Amino acid sequence: MSPLFNKAVIIGIGHIGSSLSRVIKRDGLAAELVAFDRNDLHRQQAVELGAADRATGDLADAVSDADFVLLATPVGTYAEIAEAMAPYLKKGAIVSDVGSVKMAVVRDVGPFIPEGVHFVPGHPIAGTEHSGPTAGFPELFQGRWCILTPPPGQDEAAVDKVRAVWESAGSMVEIMEPAHHDRVLAITSHLPHLIAYTIVGTATDLEGTLQQEVIKFSASGFRDFTRIAASDPVMWRDIFLNNKEAVLDVIQRFSEDLTALQRAIRWGEGDKLEELFTRTRAVRRSIIDAKQA
Amino acid sequence: MSPLFNKAVIIGIGHIGSSLSRVIKRDGLAAELVAFDRNDLHRQQAVELGAADRATGDLADAVSDADFVLLATPVGTYAEIAEAMAPYLKKGAIVSDVGSVKMAVVRDVGPFIPEGVHFVPGHPIAGTEHSGPTAGFPELFQGRWCILTPPPGQDEAAVDKVRAVWESAGSMVEIMEPAHHDRVLAITSHLPHLIAYTIVGTATDLEGTLQQEVIKFSASGFRDFTRIAASDPVMWRDIFLNNKEAVLDVIQRFSEDLTALQRAIRWGEGDKLEELFTRTRAVRRSIIDAKQA
Repeated sequence: MSPLFNKAVIIGIGHIGSSLSRVIKRDGLAAELVAFDRNDLHRQQAVELGAADRATGDLADAVSDADFVLLATPVGTYAEIAEAMAPYLKKGAIVSDVGSVKMAVVRDVGPFIPEGVHFVPGHPIAGTEHSGPTAGFPELFQGRWCILTPPPGQDEAAVDKVRAVWESAGSMVEIMEPAHHDRVLAITSHLPHLIAYTIVGTATDLEGTLQQEVIKFSASGFRDFTRIAASDPVMWRDIFLNNKEAVLDVIQRFSEDLTALQRAIRWGEGDKLEELFTRTRAVRRSIIDAKQA
Repeated sequence: MSPLFNKAVIIGIGHIGSSLSRVIKRDGLAAELVAFDRNDLHRQQAVELGAADRATGDLADAVSDADFVLLATPVGTYAEIAEAMAPYLKKGAIVSDVGSVKMAVVRDVGPFIPEGVHFVPGHPIAGTEHSGPTAGFPELFQGRWCILTPPPGQDEAAVDKVRAVWESAGSMVEIMEPAHHDRVLAITSHLPHLIAYTIVGTATDLEGTLQQEVIKFSASGFRDFTRIAASDPVMWRDIFLNNKEAVLDVIQRFSEDLTALQRAIRWGEGDKLEELFTRTRAVRRSIIDAKQA
């Protein structure tokens, strides 16, 4: 494929950033690929692993003359980075991101996008519990969805180029309103992560001997939660703080449902439990049918 | 290995029962292996799959002359089965089980165990979300723990024989008080399952269009819960009804912790979130170190 971009820049060469940079390298999507990171070790690893042609800690150097700038740092850092890089963005450049919330990205980055620069926020629905450039691999996005939330009236050619990057990574691309994205992800991703963090926290607050046994006998269900609860702490702190309304709404619904089950257990209402458990079993079937299992 | 038993009987040839029966066959632990099941199809499948020498729907026929009788049906059926089979148990026979709760097993089965028959309740910490004899496989217990909760003063030779069965299956065996078992499992298994059932239920109560998107974008965390929430509905109904006190206690702790996180999100207390998320990440490391990942 002839390069989509002369110069592409990945801002933050962590798990997601380095996975996409490997796709860009593998598929020759950019004539030059630059990694920006404030972490010295990550910059060094990115180049050693062949995940970038060169790495820099100088934001102006990174984004100058770039055609494609991808933010892949925790979303809490976006506003500061957007403001700092704005003066160096060239006309016609495309700014995108991989953040797990989209309303906050429009709010934090949108105002700094200069006239003539295109803004196409995105969110690949992929990732593992691992962090850092060494955890990246180009197949991460294969068969997964990537949601783009371009502002109304955004240049179609710019949207198509971002779409082409993700399709090259093997993803299916969907266009969505930022508010709708945040509501869907609150239930499919943010609530599950919060619940997993909570239950692992609850278990580790137990008295010493019981705590050891929780680890020992974790194969009975608990360990599946510990994998999710091992996800990057700063990234997830920023997600919850930046999707507050939608997350608080789903926590409320979940708590009501849990209280209802608690009551059913207390009063021995086995039929209510069995009815729910039968219904939830069917959902697994739908996910297998949708090839997302 | 010379057979541990002349005649072994598996009561309920489902996922767990048929997995252990395959171990008994593979390792020649019994001269004759009989499967009891009320389901015609399961009996037929058990024999076709070589998971039993013969299968019967007649409980008296199944347990007569047996040296080893393993209950592997949902725990809600135990009392009735124990009462029905008691007159046919021979002196010196060992009755065991695989139930996920142990206090209720002592309560429901204990009183029906005749003088001279040994009673060694057990719980293999293993399983998948699949059900039925076709879902069984002999490696299911490899590297996993099996907890035995023999009553005080139980015949040691009988306990050793049950231990030998599970060690042959590749499990590590631990002896525990039934009440302690139920408390440990409430946090490592019963609460995680209840939470998974709840969140999948919450998601499927959403309006139609959002529900489709929950399936589509499930790879972002949600799908891990759907696997757990696809576990056998009747088995899990019986677990919650038969470990009520311990489960209600851990639900209460979990709810308090979730409310605290909800409050931290509402008031933007990022440091509290990050502190917890960092702590829970370390738990994953412990599980990997304990080789239970």
